[in-house]
Amino acid sequence: MRKRLAERNSEISSFYVMELLRRAKQLEAQGKDVIHMEVGEPDFPTPPAIVAAGIKHIQTGEVKYTPAAGLPELRNRIAAFYRGHYGVTIDQQRIFVTPGASGAFLLALGVSLNPNEELLMADPCYPCNSNFVTLLGGRTKTIAVDASTRYQLTAKHINKHWTQKTKGALIASPSNPTGTLIRPEDLKQAIQAVDSLGGCFYSDEIYHGLVYDTHATTALAFSDDVFVINSFSKYFGMTGWRVGWLIVPDEFIQATEKLAQNIYIATSTHSQYAALAAFDENTLVELENRRAEFAARRNFLYDNLLRLGFEIPVKPEGAFYIYANCKKFTDDSCQFALDFLEAEAVAITPGKDFGSYEAHHMLRFAYTTSIANMAIAMQRLNRFINQG
Amino acid sequence: MRKRLAERNSEISSFYVMELLRRAKQLEAQGKDVIHMEVGEPDFPTPPAIVAAGIKHIQTGEVKYTPAAGLPELRNRIAAFYRGHYGVTIDQQRIFVTPGASGAFLLALGVSLNPNEELLMADPCYPCNSNFVTLLGGRTKTIAVDASTRYQLTAKHINKHWTQKTKGALIASPSNPTGTLIRPEDLKQAIQAVDSLGGCFYSDEIYHGLVYDTHATTALAFSDDVFVINSFSKYFGMTGWRVGWLIVPDEFIQATEKLAQNIYIATSTHSQYAALAAFDENTLVELENRRAEFAARRNFLYDNLLRLGFEIPVKPEGAFYIYANCKKFTDDSCQFALDFLEAEAVAITPGKDFGSYEAHHMLRFAYTTSIANMAIAMQRLNRFINQG
Repeated sequence: MRKRLAERNSEISSFYVMELLRRAKQLEAQGKDVIHMEVGEPDFPTPPAIVAAGIKHIQTGEVKYTPAAGLPELRNRIAAFYRGHYGVTIDQQRIFVTPGASGAFLLALGVSLNPNEELLMADPCYPCNSNFVTLLGGRTKTIAVDASTRYQLTAKHINKHWTQKTKGALIASPSNPTGTLIRPEDLKQAIQAVDSLGGCFYSDEIYHGLVYDTHATTALAFSDDVFVINSFSKYFGMTGWRVGWLIVPDEFIQATEKLAQNIYIATSTHSQYAALAAFDENTLVELENRRAEFAARRNFLYDNLLRLGFEIPVKPEGAFYIYANCKKFTDDSCQFALDFLEAEAVAITPGKDFGSYEAHHMLRFAYTTSIANMAIAMQRLNRFINQG
Repeated sequence: MRKRLAERNSEISSFYVMELLRRAKQLEAQGKDVIHMEVGEPDFPTPPAIVAAGIKHIQTGEVKYTPAAGLPELRNRIAAFYRGHYGVTIDQQRIFVTPGASGAFLLALGVSLNPNEELLMADPCYPCNSNFVTLLGGRTKTIAVDASTRYQLTAKHINKHWTQKTKGALIASPSNPTGTLIRPEDLKQAIQAVDSLGGCFYSDEIYHGLVYDTHATTALAFSDDVFVINSFSKYFGMTGWRVGWLIVPDEFIQATEKLAQNIYIATSTHSQYAALAAFDENTLVELENRRAEFAARRNFLYDNLLRLGFEIPVKPEGAFYIYANCKKFTDDSCQFALDFLEAEAVAITPGKDFGSYEAHHMLRFAYTTSIANMAIAMQRLNRFINQG
């Protein structure tokens, strides 16, 4: 009997956190009060104006396909957002509305990455990104990064690791899991490095709205010759709506449109209509309040983890994650996470979901739950590490 | 300067109908009353109960990610639909809710098809299907089919064209563009043929609800060892909601779940809640009325095209397409479609969007517009062919 499963299945990594989640659900079914700090999803509901815009469209019953590239009005609104927020001008034809950032990644890599070509990424990074590379028959070369570069790839990394097989480099800022941002000058140099090498630069900007004490810089501020992936999921509170966007260099417009028509036909229509309200002034006021709340949570969690003895060499400035080193307590962060869940009913994500470099010493804490909940979680964590 | 566009872009076919659509829009902008018979989308709105269920969920504001495999309740409802409608029992774990049939195809082929493996498909067929194969580095071997097999692949075709490189065969019934169904006995034999060869069988059943004068048989009636792709888009009137489903053989469950988590995270949440109402009795009554209307349209269009001199050797029994031979009028159906649009403002799809076998003699007419509109279109067609 021949093997029928595709070979790539064994190359696509599992999420270890899923095992943890299954156990968390069992504990909850037993009546345990599990605190979730593993969730990569804002705990806020979708803002009312966005909800209202979605409903208004659905009520017409005319939930038909939109053009593959997205509603012209939404592409226009996104272009206006780039002008207003970042001061950069993007031709609307370069903007594609996608089914979440997932759709954007598939599209960006689908039009540019050949089988056996390599993409440079930081270790640690979000695992799905490299799994898209695997899906397309490409290879990810992960580069161990540490606090010295704010856990970000730099021009130096890119130049050092670039080979004949390298197609490009992906930078995610703010990073999941580290929450760190690349400095504008470093971003500029990284783009220039890739440009000199004739490759493609991919900028994952899905956590851009969620930045504290500083501002995120878009790759588009330095070059038109970049792929930018963004999403309405995180800052705009629209995870379940599945709508994101991709901006491509001019030379890829036609291929991107053709591929979009073929691989997803169109993004959910009502999600696109809903997203039209995402840039409304009232919505942005509300989102800024939420950002302030996330900043307070970040401060609370950061202070507490340091106090308990975790190491966080770079204070995270974005997303809603803290990637903490637990070597003071264990050399097996995955077992630590499992034991902590079992003993204290708090779920966190082990480092090995994000790579291999120092992963056994790392844990990702998501502050997608209230300070009140996190206060209880920190008491439990204190008890756990002092009894352990 | 190295080439940055991925090689696959040149292998992914364009839709010729897009050129036609652009021209149709120009004509409309000039005030022309264009009749659209090229559209692969029902002209009915989404049924009210589905709309209401979607809105009810959105109003909670809790539009969060669902599990990657879909809402357990919806998977359950789909399983119940198979029991009730087809009399087959499917383990719910084998059912994956997907972002449209597009997501289902990507998932099915992603877990099973290796680069350089071949998939057998009929020519003519829906072009996106083979473009998913291309995306994954596989190859499509199209097999010319004609009226003698109702434009469907048979066991004979499969056995004849199978090589060491063949991974499986895809059958679409009802077929787009031909609207023809595979006979149950032929389906059974095709599945057995693929089974004997140790391959994978993929059954595209997205037009299953839209069948006239007969019944569609699911591949699952004959085997559990098949991939079945279906969708809420066509029969259930939910195109823009982007929700479909995939049923996989047991051996692929784990890989499919992992791949779904990675490539799309989850299907739009409110679309899934909306789909929960798709199987309500009231909804089904309404959908059956729509089916009767499609049947009447099919009859009207079929009779008229024959009367005008088009050849339709197999009366279509499903979907909303008639694939008509226009060799009496032209040897270049694509030019015919462009000229007809220009002269008479009726849009139809040229055969070459669906393959190469006899494509220059074929035109696809979609009856996704009212009989009243089609009556005008037929008058215009009559004038066009008699002046031409």
